[in-house]
Amino acid sequence: MRTQVGIVGAGPAGLLLSHLLHLQGIESVVLERRSRDHAEGRVRAGVLEQGTTDTLVEAGVGERLLREGLPHEGIELRFGGAGHRIAFEKLVPGHVITVYGQQEIVKDLIAARLAAGGDVRFEVDDVALHDVDSGRPYLTFGGERLDCDFIVGCDGFHGVSRPSIPPGVLTTYEREYPFAWLGVLARVRPSADELIYARTERGFALHSMRSPEISRFYLQVSPDEDLAAWPDERVWDELKTRLETVPGFTLTTGEIIDKGVTPMRGFVAEPMQYGRLFLAGDAAHIVPPTGAKGLNLAVADVRVLTRALAHRYETGSADLLDGYSRACLRRVWRAQHFSWWMTTLLHTFDTDDPYARRLQTSHLEYVTSSEAAARTLAENYVGLPYEPGD
Amino acid sequence: MRTQVGIVGAGPAGLLLSHLLHLQGIESVVLERRSRDHAEGRVRAGVLEQGTTDTLVEAGVGERLLREGLPHEGIELRFGGAGHRIAFEKLVPGHVITVYGQQEIVKDLIAARLAAGGDVRFEVDDVALHDVDSGRPYLTFGGERLDCDFIVGCDGFHGVSRPSIPPGVLTTYEREYPFAWLGVLARVRPSADELIYARTERGFALHSMRSPEISRFYLQVSPDEDLAAWPDERVWDELKTRLETVPGFTLTTGEIIDKGVTPMRGFVAEPMQYGRLFLAGDAAHIVPPTGAKGLNLAVADVRVLTRALAHRYETGSADLLDGYSRACLRRVWRAQHFSWWMTTLLHTFDTDDPYARRLQTSHLEYVTSSEAAARTLAENYVGLPYEPGD
Repeated sequence: MRTQVGIVGAGPAGLLLSHLLHLQGIESVVLERRSRDHAEGRVRAGVLEQGTTDTLVEAGVGERLLREGLPHEGIELRFGGAGHRIAFEKLVPGHVITVYGQQEIVKDLIAARLAAGGDVRFEVDDVALHDVDSGRPYLTFGGERLDCDFIVGCDGFHGVSRPSIPPGVLTTYEREYPFAWLGVLARVRPSADELIYARTERGFALHSMRSPEISRFYLQVSPDEDLAAWPDERVWDELKTRLETVPGFTLTTGEIIDKGVTPMRGFVAEPMQYGRLFLAGDAAHIVPPTGAKGLNLAVADVRVLTRALAHRYETGSADLLDGYSRACLRRVWRAQHFSWWMTTLLHTFDTDDPYARRLQTSHLEYVTSSEAAARTLAENYVGLPYEPGD
Repeated sequence: MRTQVGIVGAGPAGLLLSHLLHLQGIESVVLERRSRDHAEGRVRAGVLEQGTTDTLVEAGVGERLLREGLPHEGIELRFGGAGHRIAFEKLVPGHVITVYGQQEIVKDLIAARLAAGGDVRFEVDDVALHDVDSGRPYLTFGGERLDCDFIVGCDGFHGVSRPSIPPGVLTTYEREYPFAWLGVLARVRPSADELIYARTERGFALHSMRSPEISRFYLQVSPDEDLAAWPDERVWDELKTRLETVPGFTLTTGEIIDKGVTPMRGFVAEPMQYGRLFLAGDAAHIVPPTGAKGLNLAVADVRVLTRALAHRYETGSADLLDGYSRACLRRVWRAQHFSWWMTTLLHTFDTDDPYARRLQTSHLEYVTSSEAAARTLAENYVGLPYEPGD
């Protein structure tokens, strides 16, 4: 069996890449270890940059996103007993974020791929990458062999693609944070129209949502937090303590339908290419979720890679492919920095000295009182413009 | 002997306070441990915020400052083989910094105080503060006693005023940086019109000036650096290595006339008041010099305190005096944060991991490519507006 581009992983990066390549007349096969149900049900990110929304809409997979997604023109930073709105409509006119669950994007992309006769294979065993540094790379899985012109690893941080690159080729950069996020999905209408990022002495909390009926919450917890220690009642108590800090705000509680602990880590592998293997999204880099950048970065990678592959098939030139890593990494590091910035702005660090806490308070007051500082938050949050070529 | 306000320390804070009080009809005595020559010759800060310049001019002590000071409409951030200008004229129109040595301000203020018959005493021994928590505080020095309504400690970080406050009253906040600045004054015309903040793999360097004939340089060095290890030739070699990193830039060398090592430290004592004793400037807080905020903060403190004392003498109400600390501390912490921000943006930390270095590069690229981010630097650097009441 052969294809032009073999794609490992049917998350948003792999599926969108397959779809965008299809629009360019390039064929691909997507191999996914897990089931379709798993891919479509996995609760992950849900905040789309303006550019991500535009990319999906322009690619013809934004119909439901436009109908069901919730455009937001701001977020709230809550600290010191008051809420402070970061108003996108004033700070970055014409840009909004759209709240739409990652699994909904996955559903839309799978539907689009299958409708177009795309080849997306779920529950494939033992995917392995071969000869990626040659002109004839191939994938094997479940006893089959798939010859490819190029292979793209979209299989996330724990996938097989990155470890297939020989030791010594990649330089990795990593930052561990001394806390994690306890994430909760609840069948309850959001208690506010917009996201609320709350900094308290007990730690960070985030009020978010997935739809008018589904709320999403996060609590800063210790990195080795035991889920069993968080019965629903304790979750609600802690959320109330951290979020009900301004007059008139009451948290609406309801049935908790999902609960999990997300580690907080920054990671980048450079370069994002080895021979004919390209890494995209979480396979190459992860960010702490505070800046809501993970999914958006994956989409940016895929845009660059699609253009580079199309250029290669059109002209025979590998110039853009060879520049793929470099073209992506500037945005990747911008997102790493912004995610670190949002994380340190809002979290309580166990190792904090009182000096650092005062700096943090001053920083929060500055971000919410200086138009320029608020705009640095807003422009990163809604997504900086793509550079020429991505 | 008695006066209304006893001022400890004849640095810019104490002298300006004495002068501003005089303009309000309030008498004071300034006591200084060191000689007049020492005060007038001490090489320190030299970058004045717009508000500092305005304050001095409005107080009638800005005549020479306006004539000899060098207004700058920007600074350069130099890294990665290129210079990037932060253009104040575009980012914060109407605001400049003025380069004018602190010792020149001290000379102007001493001259103004003496011309007005002010009482400034140099080389006074054994200054001590007494009964500051009573209604009748007094100072003793060289066998004399000075009764005061109020005492103001303007005697710097190592002065006697802050330690006169009983243990347990003040909360102190402190941050040590793992490096120091080697500062050099040279009789040579500046090699560029504006300040150059250079980040290199070997550490930070700053090209600055005091006049068209005197250049000022700083090199990031280890905190326990031995001056003896820095003969002039080594200083120039290292400055060239760190500053001659862009095409066409040559460092002009010359006679070095002063050399010293400045520790990098952030410190705040709260509150800035105890009974009838008030702390102003370095006596209450110090910042690493990267943001050029120390002298400017002292001037801001003195403005607030002058208004509060004038209000007290005019109306009998201590309201503004009681609010002095609170009114100052917001600006103090803003400056602490900005100084930390500039310091971490530009210095090499020995403990840095590669991840942190990449974050720093991304941050520098962002600050020099985003208008909003550049403006956060510019507006802090030229000085945020005074708040109502200061």
